[in-house]
Amino acid sequence: LHYRVSLAYDGTDFEGWQSQSRASAVRTVQSVVEGALAKLSGGPRVVVAAAGRTDAGVHALGQVACFRLERGMPPPELARALNGILPADVRVLDAAEASEDFHARRSAVSKLYRYELDTGPVQLPTRRRHAGHWPAPLDRAAVAAVAALYLGRHDFASLQSAGGSVSTTERTLTRSEVAWRDATLVYEVEADGFLRKMVRSLVGGMLAAGRGVMGLEALRAALAARDRRQWPAPAEARGLTLVRVDYPAAVLP
Amino acid sequence: LHYRVSLAYDGTDFEGWQSQSRASAVRTVQSVVEGALAKLSGGPRVVVAAAGRTDAGVHALGQVACFRLERGMPPPELARALNGILPADVRVLDAAEASEDFHARRSAVSKLYRYELDTGPVQLPTRRRHAGHWPAPLDRAAVAAVAALYLGRHDFASLQSAGGSVSTTERTLTRSEVAWRDATLVYEVEADGFLRKMVRSLVGGMLAAGRGVMGLEALRAALAARDRRQWPAPAEARGLTLVRVDYPAAVLP
Repeated sequence: LHYRVSLAYDGTDFEGWQSQSRASAVRTVQSVVEGALAKLSGGPRVVVAAAGRTDAGVHALGQVACFRLERGMPPPELARALNGILPADVRVLDAAEASEDFHARRSAVSKLYRYELDTGPVQLPTRRRHAGHWPAPLDRAAVAAVAALYLGRHDFASLQSAGGSVSTTERTLTRSEVAWRDATLVYEVEADGFLRKMVRSLVGGMLAAGRGVMGLEALRAALAARDRRQWPAPAEARGLTLVRVDYPAAVLP
Repeated sequence: LHYRVSLAYDGTDFEGWQSQSRASAVRTVQSVVEGALAKLSGGPRVVVAAAGRTDAGVHALGQVACFRLERGMPPPELARALNGILPADVRVLDAAEASEDFHARRSAVSKLYRYELDTGPVQLPTRRRHAGHWPAPLDRAAVAAVAALYLGRHDFASLQSAGGSVSTTERTLTRSEVAWRDATLVYEVEADGFLRKMVRSLVGGMLAAGRGVMGLEALRAALAARDRRQWPAPAEARGLTLVRVDYPAAVLP
């Protein structure tokens, strides 16, 4: 049977979602979830596909993944059984039977990411796993202007890190919003898809503008250049969380 | 010279504030801060006293500590130098010269603690270091009634864990408030002082009432009995944070 699960994880102690190779000893969320399913089913390797292949240190509140099991079980029982096997830094929040044509990544129509950046002089230790840190105030108007620049359809080739292999680098951002909670920048961005390290590069651009090292027009030109050497460095992974993945109602039972 | 510092820490990887013995290899906040000061001053051991001797796993946003250094330095420089030596899970938020008669614990007039308890079926992995977990809804009215019971002056001998050695077990709670953020209970409690594991025992009582295993009158009787065997078990340490310590203006320069 075909299942989809909603997963939450603390990415700090994982080398990202995706397993490098089947024999690798690297701890990834995929390898841990596949290991739990193998243990549960007692059979051969179960391949798990996720909506977003999060990088090392990136967290998830609502990652979606899908897989097939030869012997099915009721979804609530599957969720409980997996949580009994999985380590504490990955949890199954929900499980459901998936239609045959559902695919966690290919069926997704949009994803929402959140980035948190603490800008006080000293970062609270209780925040260090879940927020980036820049130890000085930022120009908030400049940050907001860059967030607005990103909205809509653009070729984001300048914001793609090396190693990406996609047919097109155009993406449509339907939400690109900055809010401040005391000295913490909270950025939420929603799009039909994201390139490799794209969210962290979006934040990198806002940080460059907020620090005054690169202006709005320079960033606009660097975006249009489709050349990643012209774009500021991506922000630290630890501030990033995959919040939600949306699907068309037609593929959800 | 005499200094006081405001400290924040993530208690997860510490065996509490207090060093067990000078030769102990146990990682405590006190040993780490004293080690940083010894390295900074290049001299003999510097003894650091804290306002609240937090247990293993308990966090701090505003712990206060004091110590003497033979060779003084400007407080902002001291804070920067210590943060350059300390591990990332302890930070100096602020440093100041202290008057001769200031003592972090003895001079304190009140302390504020916060306890967070997630009550959803599955705890988010990003919350597991900073909130306790009870995987079922609680009776919110019963929880609020117990919080109100604690207010005022009481003999809290029933809520003191073994090993406490204080002259009196009477304490005055000036604040004992429950709020809910979705399925998370947020409890704030302020008093002139706390006994050993007292905040976790206060939460243990609220949890017992919220689960329906012990009613308000039974808790009132258990409090009056001054017998810790009659009181419910303390809540998990990881949900507890020392938020703030207050001093009379006269001891602050």
